Amino acid sequence: MFKRTRRNDEIRELIIETGINKYAEGSCLIRLGKSEVVVTASVENKVPTHLKNTNKGWVTAEYSMLPRSTQSRTVRESRRKNLDGRTQEIQRLIGRSLRAVTKLENLGQRTVWIDCDVLQADGGTRVASIIGGFIVFYEAVLFMLSEKQIKENPIIENLGAISLGIVHSNFLLDLEYQEDLIADVDLNLVATKSNKIIEIQGTAEGDPFTKSDLNELIELGLKGVQKVIEVEEEVINNLKQKYNL
Amino acid sequence: MFKRTRRNDEIRELIIETGINKYAEGSCLIRLGKSEVVVTASVENKVPTHLKNTNKGWVTAEYSMLPRSTQSRTVRESRRKNLDGRTQEIQRLIGRSLRAVTKLENLGQRTVWIDCDVLQADGGTRVASIIGGFIVFYEAVLFMLSEKQIKENPIIENLGAISLGIVHSNFLLDLEYQEDLIADVDLNLVATKSNKIIEIQGTAEGDPFTKSDLNELIELGLKGVQKVIEVEEEVINNLKQKYNL
Amino acid sequence: MFKRTRRNDEIRELIIETGINKYAEGSCLIRLGKSEVVVTASVENKVPTHLKNTNKGWVTAEYSMLPRSTQSRTVRESRRKNLDGRTQEIQRLIGRSLRAVTKLENLGQRTVWIDCDVLQADGGTRVASIIGGFIVFYEAVLFMLSEKQIKENPIIENLGAISLGIVHSNFLLDLEYQEDLIADVDLNLVATKSNKIIEIQGTAEGDPFTKSDLNELIELGLKGVQKVIEVEEEVINNLKQKYNL
Amino acid sequence: MFKRTRRNDEIRELIIETGINKYAEGSCLIRLGKSEVVVTASVENKVPTHLKNTNKGWVTAEYSMLPRSTQSRTVRESRRKNLDGRTQEIQRLIGRSLRAVTKLENLGQRTVWIDCDVLQADGGTRVASIIGGFIVFYEAVLFMLSEKQIKENPIIENLGAISLGIVHSNFLLDLEYQEDLIADVDLNLVATKSNKIIEIQGTAEGDPFTKSDLNELIELGLKGVQKVIEVEEEVINNLKQKYNL
Amino acid sequence: MFKRTRRNDEIRELIIETGINKYAEGSCLIRLGKSEVVVTASVENKVPTHLKNTNKGWVTAEYSMLPRSTQSRTVRESRRKNLDGRTQEIQRLIGRSLRAVTKLENLGQRTVWIDCDVLQADGGTRVASIIGGFIVFYEAVLFMLSEKQIKENPIIENLGAISLGIVHSNFLLDLEYQEDLIADVDLNLVATKSNKIIEIQGTAEGDPFTKSDLNELIELGLKGVQKVIEVEEEVINNLKQKYNL
Amino acid sequence: MFKRTRRNDEIRELIIETGINKYAEGSCLIRLGKSEVVVTASVENKVPTHLKNTNKGWVTAEYSMLPRSTQSRTVRESRRKNLDGRTQEIQRLIGRSLRAVTKLENLGQRTVWIDCDVLQADGGTRVASIIGGFIVFYEAVLFMLSEKQIKENPIIENLGAISLGIVHSNFLLDLEYQEDLIADVDLNLVATKSNKIIEIQGTAEGDPFTKSDLNELIELGLKGVQKVIEVEEEVINNLKQKYNL
Repeated sequence: MFKRTRRNDEIRELIIETGINKYAEGSCLIRLGKSEVVVTASVENKVPTHLKNTNKGWVTAEYSMLPRSTQSRTVRESRRKNLDGRTQEIQRLIGRSLRAVTKLENLGQRTVWIDCDVLQADGGTRVASIIGGFIVFYEAVLFMLSEKQIKENPIIENLGAISLGIVHSNFLLDLEYQEDLIADVDLNLVATKSNKIIEIQGTAEGDPFTKSDLNELIELGLKGVQKVIEVEEEVINNLKQKYNL
Repeated sequence: MFKRTRRNDEIRELIIETGINKYAEGSCLIRLGKSEVVVTASVENKVPTHLKNTNKGWVTAEYSMLPRSTQSRTVRESRRKNLDGRTQEIQRLIGRSLRAVTKLENLGQRTVWIDCDVLQADGGTRVASIIGGFIVFYEAVLFMLSEKQIKENPIIENLGAISLGIVHSNFLLDLEYQEDLIADVDLNLVATKSNKIIEIQGTAEGDPFTKSDLNELIELGLKGVQKVIEVEEEVINNLKQKYNL
Repeated sequence: MFKRTRRNDEIRELIIETGINKYAEGSCLIRLGKSEVVVTASVENKVPTHLKNTNKGWVTAEYSMLPRSTQSRTVRESRRKNLDGRTQEIQRLIGRSLRAVTKLENLGQRTVWIDCDVLQADGGTRVASIIGGFIVFYEAVLFMLSEKQIKENPIIENLGAISLGIVHSNFLLDLEYQEDLIADVDLNLVATKSNKIIEIQGTAEGDPFTKSDLNELIELGLKGVQKVIEVEEEVINNLKQKYNL
Repeated sequence: MFKRTRRNDEIRELIIETGINKYAEGSCLIRLGKSEVVVTASVENKVPTHLKNTNKGWVTAEYSMLPRSTQSRTVRESRRKNLDGRTQEIQRLIGRSLRAVTKLENLGQRTVWIDCDVLQADGGTRVASIIGGFIVFYEAVLFMLSEKQIKENPIIENLGAISLGIVHSNFLLDLEYQEDLIADVDLNLVATKSNKIIEIQGTAEGDPFTKSDLNELIELGLKGVQKVIEVEEEVINNLKQKYNL
Repeated sequence: MFKRTRRNDEIRELIIETGINKYAEGSCLIRLGKSEVVVTASVENKVPTHLKNTNKGWVTAEYSMLPRSTQSRTVRESRRKNLDGRTQEIQRLIGRSLRAVTKLENLGQRTVWIDCDVLQADGGTRVASIIGGFIVFYEAVLFMLSEKQIKENPIIENLGAISLGIVHSNFLLDLEYQEDLIADVDLNLVATKSNKIIEIQGTAEGDPFTKSDLNELIELGLKGVQKVIEVEEEVINNLKQKYNL
Repeated sequence: MFKRTRRNDEIRELIIETGINKYAEGSCLIRLGKSEVVVTASVENKVPTHLKNTNKGWVTAEYSMLPRSTQSRTVRESRRKNLDGRTQEIQRLIGRSLRAVTKLENLGQRTVWIDCDVLQADGGTRVASIIGGFIVFYEAVLFMLSEKQIKENPIIENLGAISLGIVHSNFLLDLEYQEDLIADVDLNLVATKSNKIIEIQGTAEGDPFTKSDLNELIELGLKGVQKVIEVEEEVINNLKQKYNL
């Protein structure tokens, strides 16, 4: 039986601790309820082949789960033959989302690597990775600005992300693992502060859903994204102070 | 400059030729405009480990592009280290979509493999693969019914799929490759005959989009899916006659 | 029991349809009886390392079978650890055969990739791939000539290929899969229009064979190759017209 | 120039935080100075092939560094072809060390997986992993005892580990990364509370060293190990209380 | 300029030293001129999946070159992504040749692994591997007979192998590496004592060759094979004495 | 029961045959009792990336066991997914040991590859590989000196290596496989002619050992290393004569 201890339109506690890695140009430990992800940003002074000699930079992400981030131990990716399809899907989503709010020209010929390593998974690790990824990318940008490596902030607008779904006909924001398991519909939404949508991915795990269900979900999701962005902006303001920017 | 020779809400010519493989339990060559995909269904009398001893079957898909399905030759997947992320995303999408309209119990302990091999790619190969996959899966089901391997049709409802997007502020159904390249928004929709949504994946390649844009796109996409289903049902009716079912 | 519907020294119907791929510099669908192979030629403006700075070009082939080209589904190569030995043998044979009739200097510093993808396998796919490979290579040459990329035709002489064998003491030309399965001797022959041999590969699958058996097989095989070359030359003439050459 | 802020025979601050993972049978975050490793123990109810039907259990370890645990970003192991030699050396060392103080019969037919994931590397991550590994293994043992899965504690004696070396003729305990880089001799020592040696690995990175140097190092290292064991035992006592054992 | 120090129809000195490995059921060091191969036979009490429950055994071969068996160092196979095509071709040839003279039923449900490791390569390593493979397979058979593991000798007839070719219009038996490099035609022949052919593989490296050239080559090759079998039989007689059979 | 036919502080017969490979810049077959390793040195005119533009050279080693070097056949490394951890440990040890006595500046921008391939393993193959590696490296150095490729001998001091251990309370030098299997302590020692230690690796396979045991082992090991160096120096003197140096 499904039972939720918070309101259906409420997200779990979202805590973002920055400065957790002494080498990275940006780093945070993000906790979304019991999901925990370590995220770092690394600036590299080169770009992928297809961008050489273009004056553009690149933002890309890698995602991985620690073996015991899951209820029972998962085989370590480096010990398997192939990268998991889910892993690839998620890291492509993170990279795409961040690039959607980035003016790549302002990065110069640099790549920013976003590494998301899940310490503990309790649902929502992909949105937590996007959120954490945005924060550490922002910090890396502030770092580059303060070091005069770049002149203008390439980030066009702040973004947030949230997962949601329909569970036993309830429209629930920010699914935990146990809710996700029994959800009929599973949706991930990435959107900007101005309520523009960057990514929407909805899947019928049980029965397909109507257009009106989808509308209701989007409404709910956009509200969730705004709550996320609120938390992010507080963190970003602290980072700006740290870098005097 | 972008110029379209058909109406914005029109799909390209969709031709599905069945019976193209003499070994497979289901097979077709699907042409969506200039995109061409060979699709086969193979029935195997076993299931993945997690379904053993469950009375359930499984439907899964593999997707691959021939090296010269693309404008310039692509390195063959089997000669690369890892499966491409895009490939994995697409084959997961195909499998998930088909399972969404399948009562897996009715398959018994069998796996149906859907193999989608793109001969020529001109946009929309993932939706072509879903459509072709649905047809060959249907044929495999008819085959199993006619052979008395299964008793009841496990397919709950017919599905269709279409890609669409926003190109220079135009809402276009069924994007060709050249349109896809310059699209600001790219959306894939999988839905049922009763207009229920199975999968929605929307991405802002350029500027993020509003909720109202998204609504308009969904409306347009659902219409496209219905057109696709019309074509499919003609094919399915012919198959039913072939198998006397 | 073995029963053949055509004469022992007769090859199956050989149909070569060109122009089946809109991107490739050469393409065909070749049907040898029920064996079907899609073949494309792709011109790349670079050469393998060992040919750099030599004024020579290169011709190389890749061969692959679609999972359901076979009676029961075969695991896709890209999902296996290593390339199959048989696959490697065949693609090396195709490349070597084509290079044997090519003046590599006339290609300039270019590589022509021949991709052979088997849609349906019913015996003889390796010779079908050589034949189809020769056709698409020829078309790519015509293309380069018509585009003034090269000045002289690098193809020295036309080649053909055929498989044959001894089945229950019958010397049979062009083995189908069911014949191949029970053949005591299995031979593949690649030769030129002037009856010169490029490759001969003979294997005793059952009892070893005498020198006189081998002689008889070679005689039979050379006749088969000439029949193949006849079909090819009709196709090539049509291609020459298409390219006004 | 080399400068140390603590005495040569002093180890860095060693902090072991347990209970950091809600799924694992044992878990800790270990900090040795600025080196940080997340360690978990996972109990699996089967053993490697060579131990089947032997009444023995197994303890094994996997070690990995997060991409940005290092000064500049390291390529993720799962994206490389082969496991790094250093990684394999370290994980074999951890497993061997733990098994040296374990009566494998007391584990029953179970495998305990020790996963060590380095968040931040500043020298000594292999000894930190052994220490953390010992702690989480101990917790997993307490868990199994409290759950009555096993009857007797398989751990024979407590162990500790430390790295040390010779830097500019100074004998230094517990090398930081900057010291390690310039060390002439690098030594890792794993030993028990009763001062017995489990593993010794000494390498001349610069000039080879004399037997008397080695003796002095061992003396120093054994002292360091005792200090480590003191910290460990406090943690273990707390764990025992937690599990009422 | 090409110059040969022995007659064109003469093979190089062929020396087979047996008993060079204390663990293997059969072993030899074979020297063909300056080519040197270590060959062992290993008997395993199981068969590949497709032979399970058939009362048949299997003979299979693996071939590898030590990195410095070649003029300049070759990258070690285990450090490359894929097995070399040439390697696979050769090991398939060795296995097929040996199975052609073996009654697999007489082996029982056993696999004999033939491992061929080239210490030094100076042309003809594939035929040296077949010869050495035949010797060590014979020894393994004698071993199994003497140990009463099998009752009847499964080897039907003795086989030999030789390479030959056309170099500057000379028909040369047993090509050395320098001859092989400039050969217009390259042929490998495996045949039995009764002059039956098991495998013939002929390749035009330069100009294609006529049927009459091929006939002359086969004649020459069969003579070479008989010389090889003479040497082998002396070795086999000594082995029979060793095993009192 | 354990029984030794030679004194506890005696090493097995050590025979080093040089000049066994006609291509390599240095080569030997080393026999330590019944352990046999083929070792070659290959000089390459480039260095690893991290040494480019440094005026330094590099020495590196690869180690591999032939499949039937072991009592029962081992799967060939190139047919497995990953390099064995033990293999990597050993080859890193060999390379590190050789570099410890090498002035890399004197090599110029060259890499010397040491390939160690075990023909037969009866304990001590890693020390045999270090010894053989030192010999062939020395020969390659003499070769480069005689060819005026380098001006000064980069080898600073001669080194030797030996394994030893504690078996049933006996301190044994140079363990054979059967002794190694039952050893309580296993130690590998690499040292120089002047009794300086390069590498020490000691492992408690059974009970941990005391500091005084370790001291006794080191004493014994250093004696063994001197005996090894005596044998080496005779070989080196012969090599010097061969190269007139």
